[in-house]
Amino acid sequence: MKKIINQTDTVVSEMVSGLVRTYYELVHRIEGTEVVARNLPHSGKVGLISGGGSGHEPAHAGFVGEGMLSAAVCGEVFTSPTPDQILKAIEEADEGAGVFMIVKNYSGDVMNFEMAEEMAEMEDITVKHVVVDDDITVAKTDTQGRRGVAGTILVHKILGYAAQRGYSLDQISELAEQLVANIWTIGLALSGATVPEVGKPGFELADDEIEFGIGIHGEPGYQREKIQPSKAMANELVDKLLSEVATNAPKGYGILVNGMGATPLMEQYIFANDMMDLLENKEMTVAFKKVGNLMTSIDMAGISLTIIALQDDLWVEALNAPVETIAW
Amino acid sequence: MKKIINQTDTVVSEMVSGLVRTYYELVHRIEGTEVVARNLPHSGKVGLISGGGSGHEPAHAGFVGEGMLSAAVCGEVFTSPTPDQILKAIEEADEGAGVFMIVKNYSGDVMNFEMAEEMAEMEDITVKHVVVDDDITVAKTDTQGRRGVAGTILVHKILGYAAQRGYSLDQISELAEQLVANIWTIGLALSGATVPEVGKPGFELADDEIEFGIGIHGEPGYQREKIQPSKAMANELVDKLLSEVATNAPKGYGILVNGMGATPLMEQYIFANDMMDLLENKEMTVAFKKVGNLMTSIDMAGISLTIIALQDDLWVEALNAPVETIAW
Repeated sequence: MKKIINQTDTVVSEMVSGLVRTYYELVHRIEGTEVVARNLPHSGKVGLISGGGSGHEPAHAGFVGEGMLSAAVCGEVFTSPTPDQILKAIEEADEGAGVFMIVKNYSGDVMNFEMAEEMAEMEDITVKHVVVDDDITVAKTDTQGRRGVAGTILVHKILGYAAQRGYSLDQISELAEQLVANIWTIGLALSGATVPEVGKPGFELADDEIEFGIGIHGEPGYQREKIQPSKAMANELVDKLLSEVATNAPKGYGILVNGMGATPLMEQYIFANDMMDLLENKEMTVAFKKVGNLMTSIDMAGISLTIIALQDDLWVEALNAPVETIAW
Repeated sequence: MKKIINQTDTVVSEMVSGLVRTYYELVHRIEGTEVVARNLPHSGKVGLISGGGSGHEPAHAGFVGEGMLSAAVCGEVFTSPTPDQILKAIEEADEGAGVFMIVKNYSGDVMNFEMAEEMAEMEDITVKHVVVDDDITVAKTDTQGRRGVAGTILVHKILGYAAQRGYSLDQISELAEQLVANIWTIGLALSGATVPEVGKPGFELADDEIEFGIGIHGEPGYQREKIQPSKAMANELVDKLLSEVATNAPKGYGILVNGMGATPLMEQYIFANDMMDLLENKEMTVAFKKVGNLMTSIDMAGISLTIIALQDDLWVEALNAPVETIAW
């Protein structure tokens, strides 16, 4: 394993330190925790938090700031944060109107965020949450349900806008449920990711192999194939996605091409170009587009494609609104 | 070679297409070229262009927009753009007050940008340029001089601010010369970069080896060593840099930690944290910080560190000013 780190057991703590020291005008660390919170004065609005295992940078701390998250909890690499850390984030984010949590659908995350929610309620902070489960490569009937992946960032963005505009906790909760019912993601890998404490990639692919449908922690996908042109990969991902995506999208669609960490922007733009050809052929109106490394898997080479079916003008407005964060 | 591409000879054209289709509200492609220009109406100010070989994304097209570049010329991968393409960018950027070109110090780039400058002058467009040569690992006495690397982005940012404020071509030229005399960069690699048309990495490093001092096209560095802790790498880079950096910095220093393409943000933040410890120990005041993939080398794993000695409040103001670009 070749990485720019010091010790495997301090990577998250040192990373958070580097992040808050670099962007100290925007965010701070809650002392004694791995929670990154924004510096804004409280204004009585709903607080918005997210988090989960680290290794997905810039998610989620890169999305803390005006117009997006109030705070993000950084767990150990690929490991759920503890309830007490999440509770700290809730306390910090509480401005008197309640706190809303955006949780990716992994059993550890769901359990720990819900436990923190209960702990906060004992402190008279009202908390609600949504579970994002956008990864279509897991069968809906799977006992764990579908995983939460890159679509989560779009939930951050739209709910962040709603919170900024003064939506109540109930309104945000209702909007959140609509959002997760309208977001779908699928990914592919060219290489596995190496967790520092493990020291070798979570899976190995041959020099000419790719895998469709992998998760952001190296969860296995549905098919291994020989490397193929970008157009063919785009075709596979778009086809699979469109078998799930709602045809009901009164405001068109939004798309997110997400790099997994080690994939150059050059390749992401080439893939985006092919993908847009396919959507245009299907006469789908695209009202929002973004390309970049937003929800990575450490040093995995690969890409994911997210589609959101836009149900309301507010969603489009929210996706295009400026924010003050490190990484949006 | 495993890459998300279609054909090796169309990667730049397809990449530019994907980029302008994704961010069509911000930028457009000058038809029939690989030039990316901003959509803003002309306002009679100095136009600012840059460019060079592709493979360094988001540089330079990601820095086109309000407050930074007017246009960027995307050459083939690691290959200088042709004078006629550069001329198109000059013509597009000309708003009547002249055009300033930011050129990285490679013989092909310098020759072609200068040729385009002469061609533009035959069309009565006044053009000036600066050559950025921030890579300290090349001896100053080398016949080619020092290479232009990540520090170039800071030149884009500060000159973009000056152009936006209505600086004349002569004022921008003078400022540019001051800037390049106050910017120093040094990099290290954990792996080489693979040019699509070549199909294999430009150099190979063993599983436990790193190389100090590499260039952004895989130019050899000054030393190969065994992998070491981030603190030790930061120490080596900071030490080498500080032997060059001016002690005369009345407004403090600015720093840029730049990922080479395949290095996760996690590692970049850990490195930034170690580097800041070192600068604090030396009681250097840091007035600007940024971390991320700004000047990459395709899929190289590695990092570079840039320091600018801030001579004027305007420089600090310029670095911290908001812009509307894809990637700043």
